Amino acid sequence: MKIAIDVMGGDFAPGEIIAGACKWAEQPGCHAILVGKEAIIKQELGNFDPEKLTIINADEVIQMDESVLALRKKKKASIAVATKLVHDKTADAVLSCGSTAAQMASALFILGRFNGIDRPPIVASIPGPEGKNTLLIDVGANVDCKPAQMLQFAVLGKSYAAAVMGRDNPVIGLLNNGSEETKGNALALEAYSLLKNEKILNFIGNIEGRDLFGGSCDVVVCDGFTGNIVLKALEGLGLYLGRAMVQETGKVPAVLHRFDYSNVGGAPLLGVEGVSIVCHGSSKRDAVFSGLNTACDCVTRDIVNMQKEALKLIAVD
Amino acid sequence: MKIAIDVMGGDFAPGEIIAGACKWAEQPGCHAILVGKEAIIKQELGNFDPEKLTIINADEVIQMDESVLALRKKKKASIAVATKLVHDKTADAVLSCGSTAAQMASALFILGRFNGIDRPPIVASIPGPEGKNTLLIDVGANVDCKPAQMLQFAVLGKSYAAAVMGRDNPVIGLLNNGSEETKGNALALEAYSLLKNEKILNFIGNIEGRDLFGGSCDVVVCDGFTGNIVLKALEGLGLYLGRAMVQETGKVPAVLHRFDYSNVGGAPLLGVEGVSIVCHGSSKRDAVFSGLNTACDCVTRDIVNMQKEALKLIAVD
Repeated sequence: MKIAIDVMGGDFAPGEIIAGACKWAEQPGCHAILVGKEAIIKQELGNFDPEKLTIINADEVIQMDESVLALRKKKKASIAVATKLVHDKTADAVLSCGSTAAQMASALFILGRFNGIDRPPIVASIPGPEGKNTLLIDVGANVDCKPAQMLQFAVLGKSYAAAVMGRDNPVIGLLNNGSEETKGNALALEAYSLLKNEKILNFIGNIEGRDLFGGSCDVVVCDGFTGNIVLKALEGLGLYLGRAMVQETGKVPAVLHRFDYSNVGGAPLLGVEGVSIVCHGSSKRDAVFSGLNTACDCVTRDIVNMQKEALKLIAVD
Repeated sequence: MKIAIDVMGGDFAPGEIIAGACKWAEQPGCHAILVGKEAIIKQELGNFDPEKLTIINADEVIQMDESVLALRKKKKASIAVATKLVHDKTADAVLSCGSTAAQMASALFILGRFNGIDRPPIVASIPGPEGKNTLLIDVGANVDCKPAQMLQFAVLGKSYAAAVMGRDNPVIGLLNNGSEETKGNALALEAYSLLKNEKILNFIGNIEGRDLFGGSCDVVVCDGFTGNIVLKALEGLGLYLGRAMVQETGKVPAVLHRFDYSNVGGAPLLGVEGVSIVCHGSSKRDAVFSGLNTACDCVTRDIVNMQKEALKLIAVD
C-alpha cells in the first residue's frame, strides 16, 4: 500500500503530518510518499528508512486562504503533485490536511469525477453512541444543491457506509427541520420525494438536528450549505465546552475528544476516480495516522468501483 | 404586571408550569393568569392567594403533534385563550411551553403581525463567553426565506438586543459557510448584500458555525431551515455529551446546563402586536420562572413599539 501525503497542508504542517506518516509507514506493507519541499522534509525526517518512505519534491503550496484558482498557476503545488501520483498509479491514495477546496479541485481536474456527478460531496463523521458514527454528506462542496444531487449523495454515502464502515443495508435519513414528511424547505421536500421513491435505498425519512447523535442512521443527507454550518457549529460547541470544562474541572473530558478534529481521522472525497482523503486542517499526528488507515480501507474495499456500481443501479432504475 | 400562562402546554405541564408561575407571582407587583382546565389547575394549586393568581378556564389543548389547523376547530384551546387576554389588554404578555406552531399561529391571527412582516421569526439564545449570549434568528418559522425577510430579522433582532439585552449598537452577523463575502448559497449571497447596504445596521459580515459561541455578534441572522437544524443539532450534542459525562464522571458539568433547555428561559416572538414568549417544550419550573421575567423585561422595555420604530427606519431608507 503506497499513499501520497501532502505534507505541506494543515495548521501543523509539516512536522505533525510527517510524524503521522512515519508512524503509519512503520506498519507492515505500508509505504509513505511524502510530497512537499524536499529540503524541509529531509530536515524534519532526519534518518529514515528508504524502504518505508519516499520523498517527492513539490516546490509550491496552496495556502488555506488562497482561491482554488491558485491551482492553475501553481502546477507544482504539493496537493496537485500528490494527486497526480494517484492518477499515474504510483500511489494508491492521497491524503491532505490542507485547503479542502484545493484538494477538491485537484481531485476533479486530475482524477476526474464520475459520470453524472456535478461536484462531488464532502463527507464528515458525527460521533454516536457506542462508537456508531453517522456520516453527514455533503458538508460544504455543494452550497446550492439540486434535489437530484442529494439522491446521488445518498447513493455514494450508502456504498461508503457499506464498504468501509461495514454497515449492512445502510440506513439513510434526510436532515430536516421536522420529522414529518410535510416538513422542510422546497429543496428538502423535493429531495425527500426522490429518496423515498428510490428502491435501492433503505430510507427512513427525515432526521432532526437533535437526532444526529442517536445512531439511528448510517448516512444523513443534506445540502452542503446546511451541512457545513452544522458541522462547524458542532465543532464550535465542542471547543467552547472544552474551554469551559478546563476552567471548571481542570481537564477536557474524554468524550469531547470525539469532537476534537485534531485527533479524528479523515474521510474520502466521494464521486471521484481515486481515493483522496480529506483531513481536518488542525490534524495532528494521530489524526494523520488514523486518516492513512482510513485510506487503506478505502483502497482495499475498492470504494471507487463500489460507488460506480451503486450509481449504475439508480441510473437504470 | 399581569402575564397569561398557558399551563397546558409542554412536556411537564401542568405541574412544572404552575410551579414556575407561582414562584414568579410571589414577586412584588406580579400577577399570574393561569389558563387551562380549571379543575386540573385548582387541584395542582391547592390553596393559593387570589391576589397573586387568577384562573381562566380553557377546555381544549393543542397537542405537540397536532397541525396548527387544529386551532381553527379548538377556539377554546389554552394558547388561543391566553393570547386573546393580551389582545384584550387583560394581560401584558403571554407565555407558553406548548406547540410553537400553535403559539405562532395564535399570535398571527389574534395579535396580528406588523405591516410588511410576512411570518414573524423565532429567536433563540446561544450561550457565549462570560454570559454574553448571541441571538440566533430565525430558528424555524420561515423555512423558505426571501433575502428581504432576513433583513427584517436583522432589524427586529437589533431592536430586541438593544431594548432587552442592553446591547449598545448591536453587532449583526450572517450565518454562512465561510467568512468571505463571496461565500454562501444564493439566498445568503443576496441577504449579505442587503445587510451590508442597510445603514442602520452594525453589520460585520459572515459568521461561520464555529464562531457562534465566540460572543463576536449580538445577533446572527439565518433562514429558518438552517437555524432550526443548527439549534436542534446543538441541543442534541448537549444531551449526548451530558449522557456521556454522566457515564464518565458521574455528573453533568455546570457548563452543560447552559444547553439544558429545561432550565433556560424563553424568547419572544418578534414582529407581532404583543409580547408572546416561547419556552422550550421541556421547560421545568426554573425555565418558566426565567421566561416570565423575560416577559416582564419585554413589556417594560416596550419591545413592540421598539421593533416598529426600527422597521420604519429601513422602510424610509
